Amino acid sequence: MKIWTKDEIVARFDMERAVRMVEQGLIAYSRKTAQVPPIQNFRFESSNGECCIKSAYVDGAATFAVKVSSGFYNNPAAGLPSNDGLVMLFSAKTGAPVALLQDEGWLTCVRTAIAGQLVARALAPHEVHGIGIIGTGVQARLQLEYLRTVTSCRDVHVWEPNAERRLRFADDMSVFGFSVHAYESAEGVAINSNLIVTATPSREALLKSQWVQDGTHITAVGADGPGKQELDAWIVGRADVIVVDSIAQCSKYGEVSHALSAGLIQEERLIELGTLLASGKRGRDDSQGEQITVADLTGVAVQDAQIADSVVGNAV
Amino acid sequence: MKIWTKDEIVARFDMERAVRMVEQGLIAYSRKTAQVPPIQNFRFESSNGECCIKSAYVDGAATFAVKVSSGFYNNPAAGLPSNDGLVMLFSAKTGAPVALLQDEGWLTCVRTAIAGQLVARALAPHEVHGIGIIGTGVQARLQLEYLRTVTSCRDVHVWEPNAERRLRFADDMSVFGFSVHAYESAEGVAINSNLIVTATPSREALLKSQWVQDGTHITAVGADGPGKQELDAWIVGRADVIVVDSIAQCSKYGEVSHALSAGLIQEERLIELGTLLASGKRGRDDSQGEQITVADLTGVAVQDAQIADSVVGNAV
Repeated sequence: MKIWTKDEIVARFDMERAVRMVEQGLIAYSRKTAQVPPIQNFRFESSNGECCIKSAYVDGAATFAVKVSSGFYNNPAAGLPSNDGLVMLFSAKTGAPVALLQDEGWLTCVRTAIAGQLVARALAPHEVHGIGIIGTGVQARLQLEYLRTVTSCRDVHVWEPNAERRLRFADDMSVFGFSVHAYESAEGVAINSNLIVTATPSREALLKSQWVQDGTHITAVGADGPGKQELDAWIVGRADVIVVDSIAQCSKYGEVSHALSAGLIQEERLIELGTLLASGKRGRDDSQGEQITVADLTGVAVQDAQIADSVVGNAV
Repeated sequence: MKIWTKDEIVARFDMERAVRMVEQGLIAYSRKTAQVPPIQNFRFESSNGECCIKSAYVDGAATFAVKVSSGFYNNPAAGLPSNDGLVMLFSAKTGAPVALLQDEGWLTCVRTAIAGQLVARALAPHEVHGIGIIGTGVQARLQLEYLRTVTSCRDVHVWEPNAERRLRFADDMSVFGFSVHAYESAEGVAINSNLIVTATPSREALLKSQWVQDGTHITAVGADGPGKQELDAWIVGRADVIVVDSIAQCSKYGEVSHALSAGLIQEERLIELGTLLASGKRGRDDSQGEQITVADLTGVAVQDAQIADSVVGNAV
């Protein structure tokens, strides 16, 4: 078994190959040509930690993947990062361990940003006049970075509760060629953007429906477990198109779950991302400029299997 | 993260410590002071393989465990072992990976044999006049080895379908001080033994109820997944005491599941091994010499967590 350090993974990483393979993985998931057992979850109350184990096999692939990712929220006080993670690949022919990727959670961050890019390609308005970002962490930064190839818009509007982090985000992302405006409330972001990404671990709605302008697309990536929520359920209720990465997961604990349990939408309204990607079609009706579209991403293990395979694949 | 080879694991292994910790793990499981998420399963039709991911955390332990174990049954034709496996331990305080044990499935074999030993201590007749072994593989050999401290009986009766393997088992185990008789049918084994262990991947009953003598204890360790069966369901139906390592798992796919679905027993009859061990009592009524007792072992992830911790624990 080859062991990969994070540096080796980053050095070997090929963004285009990764995007293509994550897309194929999501398509396989929606076509049910992948095995994705139920997620295993742990909670560690005393250390304010959680861990999940996601495993997947995309039919025909040389390997299957087991990913362990954790969030321990007392870590920063001890000078450690909150998030950690690794991916293991095993041969689908012999069961032998093939690779251990000690990516420290980096691949999870990237595959999530890739899903955001795939969504934006299919659902963002043709004319993006402002990109809104709720949140300023690693995922918020990566989402913005991965939107670069989808739109030529570089006007960014950002909010998070902490003023210092808002300003640091603006400074940091300006270096990468974005023109970033930080706001004192999410309302400013919503009013000035028609492509919005929410990327926070919030447990309450940060984005209100009354702020969201007609013609906006919103991608929500934060609600990856029970109790989490970033969007006012009315936004989902009002959306013309609702795309989810996994109907099973999103109905249980994504943004969509809140709208479903409030009776604002029915499950029949949900379109799975892999189904949309397989169609090769746009997900919004571009003749109707006022359409609101929402994508709810909870993270599917096929993404982990495919992005790990995209790094290791040639070496297997 | 420290990486352990199989040789290092075997060299470091302390049998008594492992037995004690596996016992504590099973007790924690039955007391519900352990987190054991549902098992993840894969099937690989084209390569005749399967893989399962078992994870567990015993409350208060320094680490939690994720075990990946596989059986790929076309491997031997290519000169590879069928079974493989590894265990990873992560810190329950920070989520950081602590150890990777590349035991190639050895720890799984041993923790299963340890469960067999714990069961025999509580359920084997005081006077064992013959040990019956159905199966001649690694697990059959380990079960016999781990019975050595439970009984002074060294008379062993063995059967499996293949004559050559029966004789090889007899030769091999004789070297370890057992007097082994190989039979041409399981009937001979049953008639001459009052402590029987079945350790095969059989998908049909190998041991018939009419062969089993009064006063016998039977431990079945093979039926660890759907479709597997070693005991005639009537044996379970007829047993005075039925012990299972996990009520949840055994009701779904252990030996007990066949007796339950045939209506031969009710779930209320099942005693969980951890509950029995916690009581510190014998599981059979020794004043009633004719009692038949059965133990159905499907393998619980707490065993994996504890045996891995028993190896690594001091080094963490």
